[in-house]
Amino acid sequence: MEEFQLPELTFAKGHGTGNDFIIIPDPEGEHPLTAQHVAWLCDRHRGLGADGILRVIRAGALLDRGEISHLDEGIERDTWFMDYRNADGSLAEMCGNGVRVFAHWLYSRELTLNSCFPVGTRAGVKNVHVHSADLYLADVTVSMGTPAIMGESSCIFDNQHYSGWGIDMGNPHLACVVSDLTSDQLSQLDFRTAPEWDKQFFPHGVNVEILTPLTGSGEVNMRVYERGVGETLSCGTGTVAAAQAALLDSGRQHGTILVHIPGGRVEVSISAHDATLRGPSVILAEGKIAPIVARS
Amino acid sequence: MEEFQLPELTFAKGHGTGNDFIIIPDPEGEHPLTAQHVAWLCDRHRGLGADGILRVIRAGALLDRGEISHLDEGIERDTWFMDYRNADGSLAEMCGNGVRVFAHWLYSRELTLNSCFPVGTRAGVKNVHVHSADLYLADVTVSMGTPAIMGESSCIFDNQHYSGWGIDMGNPHLACVVSDLTSDQLSQLDFRTAPEWDKQFFPHGVNVEILTPLTGSGEVNMRVYERGVGETLSCGTGTVAAAQAALLDSGRQHGTILVHIPGGRVEVSISAHDATLRGPSVILAEGKIAPIVARS
Repeated sequence: MEEFQLPELTFAKGHGTGNDFIIIPDPEGEHPLTAQHVAWLCDRHRGLGADGILRVIRAGALLDRGEISHLDEGIERDTWFMDYRNADGSLAEMCGNGVRVFAHWLYSRELTLNSCFPVGTRAGVKNVHVHSADLYLADVTVSMGTPAIMGESSCIFDNQHYSGWGIDMGNPHLACVVSDLTSDQLSQLDFRTAPEWDKQFFPHGVNVEILTPLTGSGEVNMRVYERGVGETLSCGTGTVAAAQAALLDSGRQHGTILVHIPGGRVEVSISAHDATLRGPSVILAEGKIAPIVARS
Repeated sequence: MEEFQLPELTFAKGHGTGNDFIIIPDPEGEHPLTAQHVAWLCDRHRGLGADGILRVIRAGALLDRGEISHLDEGIERDTWFMDYRNADGSLAEMCGNGVRVFAHWLYSRELTLNSCFPVGTRAGVKNVHVHSADLYLADVTVSMGTPAIMGESSCIFDNQHYSGWGIDMGNPHLACVVSDLTSDQLSQLDFRTAPEWDKQFFPHGVNVEILTPLTGSGEVNMRVYERGVGETLSCGTGTVAAAQAALLDSGRQHGTILVHIPGGRVEVSISAHDATLRGPSVILAEGKIAPIVARS
């Protein structure tokens, strides 16, 4: 039992296709978040509860505080930076659904006036396009960068062996297309325990996607087990990895895929130069977090 | 996929030993909550997320709206009524941890000035005593009423047969003391699937507690599977049912028991005339819920 004092923080709660986040506006970096603090905020019973935290901070403030070591190409001091944290308190490079909600927040709260703008992340700059937005709902496309195909690997999940494609999206994925798997069968799989993966292939852990083969109309169904979190209703980078794997599996490298996930659906387009992810964002609550002495 | 329009609601988030609630202040009953609305608010990914909702309303307003049929003894028109809803949208008679958080809200927000006061519930009036409180933390005792011992029953849980005491606390419980069960063994049990219970004994379903035998120092460890919710970190009425079962199991009817639950610990005192539950309450956030068109 440990006690710690917190600053009073403002927050918002949002989600992209059921992948949910606590937004913490902190433009000047006045509120460093410890792993313990993040884990408490994301605790679904003793805290607010979320898959992760989106700290809204200027890239220059993060640099000045030593929380990043340099500014990547395309990121200026006044670029908004998505300081993303996983629910367990660990740092994350990137989160595709998170960027959508992050862009929704910036644009709808008039922190940026252009509907197309860059967002800084630990996986480099991501360009976003807000197609439409009010305070609560938005439709956003995020440029995700070209998926890097690492080669084939495999995992064991619920006592089954799965082969798939290792795909680096800034974070590592293993996307497994399963022949003849129907969406009904997919929904029956047991995702409660973590998969076993090849530790040499993925030394920093891996997010695992299991998916149905690509249909003639360009659709797949997928489920995802996120590193450090467990099953989530959606994982943005995972949907791109899944779309890339589905294309490779059908003998193509590029195309547009509609990816159905437990939390809804998103559209992934992969070209030679980029991959984009388009989907909804919801911001459903705003308020203040108490400066209480929490016990972990 | 269904859409519905919501009013803009103010809310707070709190918990009692990890049993967590969304508090919705609605003194005059201007915001009736449908089951669908409640289920969305309690959804842990698309909503705010909670085990249940505490609507803060005057008993008279609830009566005038036809949401209760009469005022029980000890409940006046201006008595604060805990209109409690389970996460699945169903009505609940009572929630022991909920009453503690409800009392914390009323006293710390100066909606009542006396530290001892009655709270209306669908299981009748409950008297509370706020020992100490600031805006965020409180220590509260709740009068829970005498446990009604229904007799012995049993259930099947994770392929194991458990015998226990049927105990009515305003809501039905089956509290099973397991001989020789250690707290380590208890923590290893699989609580992911619902128990099978005697449908004749408990026609409206049942909350199931599994607990270790009473120690010499008057302590037990318990876990609970709540009807309509699943495992929770704590269940107030369940801790009283468990304390009563532990006393019966050791040949006594009355006494004071320290009940350790996954979410912390509470003190239960059972006499011939009443049972009381004493424990902490935390209120950790406040804000507004967006009037968005949610999709269920």
